[in-house]
Amino acid sequence: MNYLQPYIVSFKNYLESSLIGNSPSTLYEPADYILSLGGKRIRPILVLLGTHLYEESFEKALDAAFAIEVFHNFTLVHDDIMDQAELRRGQLTVHKKYSTNQAILTGDVMLIHSYEKLLGYSPVLSHMLVSVFSKMAEELCKGQQMDMDFETRENVSIGDYIKMIELKTAVLLGAALKIGALIGNAADSDAEHLYQFGINFGIAFQLQDDVLDVFGASAHVGKTIGGDIIQNKKTYLFLKSLELASDEQKSNLVRLYSGHSNMSETDKVEWVTKTFTSLLVKEYAQQVMEAYRDLAISHLHSCSIDVGKKELLISLVNDFLNRES
Amino acid sequence: MNYLQPYIVSFKNYLESSLIGNSPSTLYEPADYILSLGGKRIRPILVLLGTHLYEESFEKALDAAFAIEVFHNFTLVHDDIMDQAELRRGQLTVHKKYSTNQAILTGDVMLIHSYEKLLGYSPVLSHMLVSVFSKMAEELCKGQQMDMDFETRENVSIGDYIKMIELKTAVLLGAALKIGALIGNAADSDAEHLYQFGINFGIAFQLQDDVLDVFGASAHVGKTIGGDIIQNKKTYLFLKSLELASDEQKSNLVRLYSGHSNMSETDKVEWVTKTFTSLLVKEYAQQVMEAYRDLAISHLHSCSIDVGKKELLISLVNDFLNRES
Repeated sequence: MNYLQPYIVSFKNYLESSLIGNSPSTLYEPADYILSLGGKRIRPILVLLGTHLYEESFEKALDAAFAIEVFHNFTLVHDDIMDQAELRRGQLTVHKKYSTNQAILTGDVMLIHSYEKLLGYSPVLSHMLVSVFSKMAEELCKGQQMDMDFETRENVSIGDYIKMIELKTAVLLGAALKIGALIGNAADSDAEHLYQFGINFGIAFQLQDDVLDVFGASAHVGKTIGGDIIQNKKTYLFLKSLELASDEQKSNLVRLYSGHSNMSETDKVEWVTKTFTSLLVKEYAQQVMEAYRDLAISHLHSCSIDVGKKELLISLVNDFLNRES
Repeated sequence: MNYLQPYIVSFKNYLESSLIGNSPSTLYEPADYILSLGGKRIRPILVLLGTHLYEESFEKALDAAFAIEVFHNFTLVHDDIMDQAELRRGQLTVHKKYSTNQAILTGDVMLIHSYEKLLGYSPVLSHMLVSVFSKMAEELCKGQQMDMDFETRENVSIGDYIKMIELKTAVLLGAALKIGALIGNAADSDAEHLYQFGINFGIAFQLQDDVLDVFGASAHVGKTIGGDIIQNKKTYLFLKSLELASDEQKSNLVRLYSGHSNMSETDKVEWVTKTFTSLLVKEYAQQVMEAYRDLAISHLHSCSIDVGKKELLISLVNDFLNRES
């Protein structure tokens, strides 16, 4: 994905020269730590790209790109506490490396700092950016809540699941692009189409993530293959399997995901993966993913940007959805 | 404090008809719960008052007053987790009534919602409000961090302590007034003097709180007399005592506050209170409090508001600083 290099380089330089704060160091060091762990940086790239669709100097979007990345990392810090996750990108999570109290407070200051970074634009533009950002941030909390509620809820539908990943994952991609577009002075209708593009791409992106979690290359650093299965996550693959399964398969799946099974983790992952494979749910997921991808691209075609830039975004979508880890 | 009734009534009506959100109810119910527990509501009152200094229709500040109260309650929810507090205003804390995960996430959505409530003003005004608010919110996190750091730090000076309570408590009172004044279209210099008024009043207010914690009427609902002593809080009373104590008293105080003492909580509170009394630190605190009160009032006199309104604010300061619980 060489065509993303200018954005990646620009953002990394900005990130390396940026500090959220200095003192007290106990407050800010954990923020530097999580931000230094890396990741695909897709969200800040989308902000920069959103601006670059309309203006040459995409660097003016760097503050907003940083805001989005800091916000994303805030959600990781707090979600990792809630999920009792020990590792993130192969390194200790913030609450494991420091403490739960520290992770709560540093997460809070990261959320606040992400708002502050959006205030450096003109008052009218800042007001628009903060409005988009706040709505998205509240939706993310709703998505995380739904995800937690699903753990103990029995009747989760595929529709519920899609709504949950829309809120928990996709709106952030949509908002990143929209914020970038607004900084680039895009027309309202374009900003809205890019928002919808991002949401639909985001849903496809998360479905791909679910598939990779089970069927991805096991060399993937810092992630366990079948982690979702071990954690009884009611993903699309699981919910579609319930729909298609025989009575026997269904009761086995429900029991295995209830937390009351004695099967070893390895055996459980193996059995569930085999069931997923036999029910062809990976292929169903692929179809749904393609539908969301096509919807995303149709929104892109409604934007008044030139063909070359549309193609760049289409490449990005396809490259991310065809990734193997 | 009858003169505050119009603001209290107006705010309570607004609060009763307001919901942060509905769905998922698991996310928003804990927010309603903590907001319904009451309290003095001094912060939203200061917002309304700040506007009323400059405009008849202080009701236009209700959204901002709500933002400030929701924010304050967010800090209570997260601080109560960090302090492992079980009771708040005589009722279960959010993390005890629901769960720590729930308290983290509901706190997050409350913080986000408080920003959202500031966005309903004109873009230029909103931008000013969010800027004041964000700076204050970050300072509060710093204050909370300093408070946590002090638990294990040996050499805390009285200056460090005053800085900590300025950040953790006072800037919120200052920001509440400033936000109100900005909504009332006050001149920048007035808004700044009111901010400083609020900060100095806030420091005095917290010192009074420290005194009441040890010497207040024991009928005070939902609070244990000597709670700060039990929790080894390095308050002004403790730090001033260290300064004035004999070598023997000093080593006793340090040992009692180290967590390595076998003395019962009741005996500890009794012994420490007696030491505080013999060293006259309550009287010292009173003097410092009066100095901050006078500084607050001098900032008030620099504001271009009429005498009647100044006197109202002076009454408020004196009533709050002379309170017995």
